[in-house]
Amino acid sequence: MAIRVVGLDGDDTLWHNETRFKLTQGELRDLLQRHVPEADVEARLADVEMKNLGIYGYGVKAFTLSMIETAIQLTNKRIPAADIEVILGWGKRMLMEPTELLPGVEEALRELSLRYDLLLITKGDLFDQESKLARSGLAGMFLGVEILSEKNVDSYRGVLKRRGIKPQEFVMVGNSLRSDVLPVLELGARAVHIPYNVTWHHEQVPEESLPRQGWQRLGGIREVGGYLSVINGGPG
Amino acid sequence: MAIRVVGLDGDDTLWHNETRFKLTQGELRDLLQRHVPEADVEARLADVEMKNLGIYGYGVKAFTLSMIETAIQLTNKRIPAADIEVILGWGKRMLMEPTELLPGVEEALRELSLRYDLLLITKGDLFDQESKLARSGLAGMFLGVEILSEKNVDSYRGVLKRRGIKPQEFVMVGNSLRSDVLPVLELGARAVHIPYNVTWHHEQVPEESLPRQGWQRLGGIREVGGYLSVINGGPG
Repeated sequence: MAIRVVGLDGDDTLWHNETRFKLTQGELRDLLQRHVPEADVEARLADVEMKNLGIYGYGVKAFTLSMIETAIQLTNKRIPAADIEVILGWGKRMLMEPTELLPGVEEALRELSLRYDLLLITKGDLFDQESKLARSGLAGMFLGVEILSEKNVDSYRGVLKRRGIKPQEFVMVGNSLRSDVLPVLELGARAVHIPYNVTWHHEQVPEESLPRQGWQRLGGIREVGGYLSVINGGPG
Repeated sequence: MAIRVVGLDGDDTLWHNETRFKLTQGELRDLLQRHVPEADVEARLADVEMKNLGIYGYGVKAFTLSMIETAIQLTNKRIPAADIEVILGWGKRMLMEPTELLPGVEEALRELSLRYDLLLITKGDLFDQESKLARSGLAGMFLGVEILSEKNVDSYRGVLKRRGIKPQEFVMVGNSLRSDVLPVLELGARAVHIPYNVTWHHEQVPEESLPRQGWQRLGGIREVGGYLSVINGGPG
């Protein structure tokens, strides 16, 4: 059965995301080290974020709240309100920044959309993701948009079921082995992994845990069209 | 054409929501008036929330960030970090609280679900709303769940289109004239308004701005089944 529907991740697949977080994390480190020079800001922030994931979910608002919590903890409540105001400002800046597309995305999507139905399948904060999509200028290329609170086997199964898509007709393209590849393979669909130069620690999985079949690593989104033509043209 | 699908709002229609916000707002007022006794905390918080709505959207995380911003502004940056930590704690408490159903909701939904397809149509933070639904124990009653970043004519139209529902087959039940009644009437569907004892200022619209036809105010969710039977049994 030929591939008919291509799911595309947003963050770090179509547009830059993790670099924005890393940049702000660096600013937080500089800010807090003025108060506590020895502090391992990144490690503590990562702890706080992981502890809050089940309460806040993903996204910039969750990240901002976790930065404030980290700042209070690490300074033993000595951080001045003026610095917390600065952190609030970083969060707003992240939410308002233009969506910066990765190279070749627009042309690649235009070409793919001629031959396949395209679905944007992202996770994270609903408001933030819709706003990023609107600012990306790509909204018109997608037949549909699915914003999930978590990408796992159940949530992908829900998307395919709701939209009447068989797993054999579906391929997911994304930068995260954990969110875009593994659960999709478990459903019996295909996946394409396009690594991004930075991966959030939470998204990392050991490569050995992946099945050998059903997925392919490509160097960029421009290669997806050619890869799908080979699959659809093949004997299977 | 008979009503076939009933859309139900969540916050303050199926479960308490605004009272939780009001409670926390009262705590913020008490906390801040210790630093600035004259301050009109509610008014300033409302201003900050409205200014942030386009950046943060709805939900508890947005509310928490706006409370922190209000605290910093009103105290002229003199609020100690320990107090900001308290505010962070309020936000987490709101996100983890059990979902408290309004009286009669469970029985009413069970009965409605025998005769109609039920859709939960809420707005707000994706993660927060999914988590509330899971904690409500009501998830099994709904054929589908739609969490919208904003409830307006376009977003309702999208829901009906995606699900193949004609406006004449649809009725929306909710506590907000602005979000649950007005946009639905504009689409040519019906609406039922069930007022809640507290309404967020942002949700208030003057009653005169509503069409006279196509909607009905009821005293509680228990009355919805009877009302729909009358509509569906009528000549039209």
